[in-house]
Amino acid sequence: MNDGSRLQGVLSPVCTPFSSDLTPDPQRFLQQCRWLLSQDVGLAVFGTNSEGNSLSLEERLELLDVLVDNGVDTRRMMPGTGCCALTDTVRLTTHAVELGCAGALMLPPFYYKDLSDDALFRCFAEVVERVADERLRVYLYHIPQVAQVPITLAATEKLLKAYPRQIAGMKDSSGDWTNTKTFLDAFASTGFDVFVGAEAFLLRNMRNGGKGCISATANVNPAAITRLFETWSEGDADAQQARLDVIRDVFKKFPMIPALKAAIGHYSGDATWANVRPPLVSLSQNQANALIAELESKGFTMPGLAAVR
Amino acid sequence: MNDGSRLQGVLSPVCTPFSSDLTPDPQRFLQQCRWLLSQDVGLAVFGTNSEGNSLSLEERLELLDVLVDNGVDTRRMMPGTGCCALTDTVRLTTHAVELGCAGALMLPPFYYKDLSDDALFRCFAEVVERVADERLRVYLYHIPQVAQVPITLAATEKLLKAYPRQIAGMKDSSGDWTNTKTFLDAFASTGFDVFVGAEAFLLRNMRNGGKGCISATANVNPAAITRLFETWSEGDADAQQARLDVIRDVFKKFPMIPALKAAIGHYSGDATWANVRPPLVSLSQNQANALIAELESKGFTMPGLAAVR
Repeated sequence: MNDGSRLQGVLSPVCTPFSSDLTPDPQRFLQQCRWLLSQDVGLAVFGTNSEGNSLSLEERLELLDVLVDNGVDTRRMMPGTGCCALTDTVRLTTHAVELGCAGALMLPPFYYKDLSDDALFRCFAEVVERVADERLRVYLYHIPQVAQVPITLAATEKLLKAYPRQIAGMKDSSGDWTNTKTFLDAFASTGFDVFVGAEAFLLRNMRNGGKGCISATANVNPAAITRLFETWSEGDADAQQARLDVIRDVFKKFPMIPALKAAIGHYSGDATWANVRPPLVSLSQNQANALIAELESKGFTMPGLAAVR
Repeated sequence: MNDGSRLQGVLSPVCTPFSSDLTPDPQRFLQQCRWLLSQDVGLAVFGTNSEGNSLSLEERLELLDVLVDNGVDTRRMMPGTGCCALTDTVRLTTHAVELGCAGALMLPPFYYKDLSDDALFRCFAEVVERVADERLRVYLYHIPQVAQVPITLAATEKLLKAYPRQIAGMKDSSGDWTNTKTFLDAFASTGFDVFVGAEAFLLRNMRNGGKGCISATANVNPAAITRLFETWSEGDADAQQARLDVIRDVFKKFPMIPALKAAIGHYSGDATWANVRPPLVSLSQNQANALIAELESKGFTMPGLAAVR
């Protein structure tokens, strides 16, 4: 039940900058969010590529406040709010809704595995009931290779029946186009907004009724990805898609999150960006050099990106 | 490097009671802990069977305080303290150490998968360095079928070299005796204390230099499991083990955590115990009836267990 005000387009699971003591750095975070917005990319903060689950609840609440207190447009924000503990998910989601965030990207609780459809339904239903706010728009987050708790078709159908306004769509990060197509075919016509988890699927998603993508590499290649979203029905769309894939394929040769941060660090001249929290490990200097050399060979740039001084 | 004061024996990942609104119930929790201690079973609160990761950090801190404020013996406590966020793990572990808890049962961060040995090492090393307390005793928690992040031999070896006093042992919940034996053979002689994750392996563990078990079914069958620990070198040990297995096998026919809570609810006459947090689902009435009928047929009882009135 899409009322026309909902999110669409390209969003970035914004990389979270850490100081050398591994505390989140609000100034760098704010600057990165502003740069992404300047490239017409929305803010899916606290996603997988944000190391969102490596942040405490308090750290996430505080970073959200920093953005909103500094005038970042909440209509372009879809924070990740799905935690293992029901009470954490409710608290973070409630805060996001109260701040005016356009959506909440919600993982299922991901510690216990092998959930039945009814168990999965109950996880999200409890959150919707407890947040109890008409403004809540939930995007179900399907990333089975990481969370190991998939979002199923049957649970989605049951959720849509129970909460047609609150269940707004999904992010499909499975990398399995057959799965994306199944959800599009089943629910897109009823106003369920499907975002793919990588721009590699952006054109196919748009041609099949999807609404955009939420992609790791939107952290580093935002303008080009947005251009494809805006012009996907034009004649050069396949050529654009091919060029996007070339850049994404470079990043895919390395551990993704450390590679994104190494690139942001390099192109902003701000090496602090390379820091990651455990369990992640920064690229070695050799890896970082190889990444940048390969990006340069493809003519890659990050225009307008600057260091925090 | 076991200084002789360390935990051994049988511990229970204490089931966490929830009120009908799914808030943790401190009175029932305290009573259950006291009952387990009266059966000579230690308290591995906030384990997998405790729905520990379904509790917020604040809820865990508060429940720990309830136990300690009410005089529960911290020398018998090994709370689960491993969270996805480094800052949460450090805060909860620090609190446990400051309260005097004998150990901390530590999951690795479990959102990201496919960690290298070095990445795994760094996760625990950062916690040890940040807690920075000589009293800290870490028990590495290996439960790959749930966490999907295994504790490896190589990472353990590196941790033991770096922190011989702090890395006290492990809980092996893999259910794979070959894995347990590998860790026992590699490290037990140096004072690394191996607990198996089910009493089904208790006798084998004791015969091979292990120190006990931390088992779901110690919530419901504590005295008999403790008796095997105390008399494992006597002539009837195999017969005792066989009797323990009969009871555990009944519980294994049902979803374990809801079945434990159904049994505690039934034998205490306190039906509130059946409540579980999402993503878990309570047993149906039919399932609960079948569980109790089968337990009765084996002569099972829970002596001394009483309802909170």
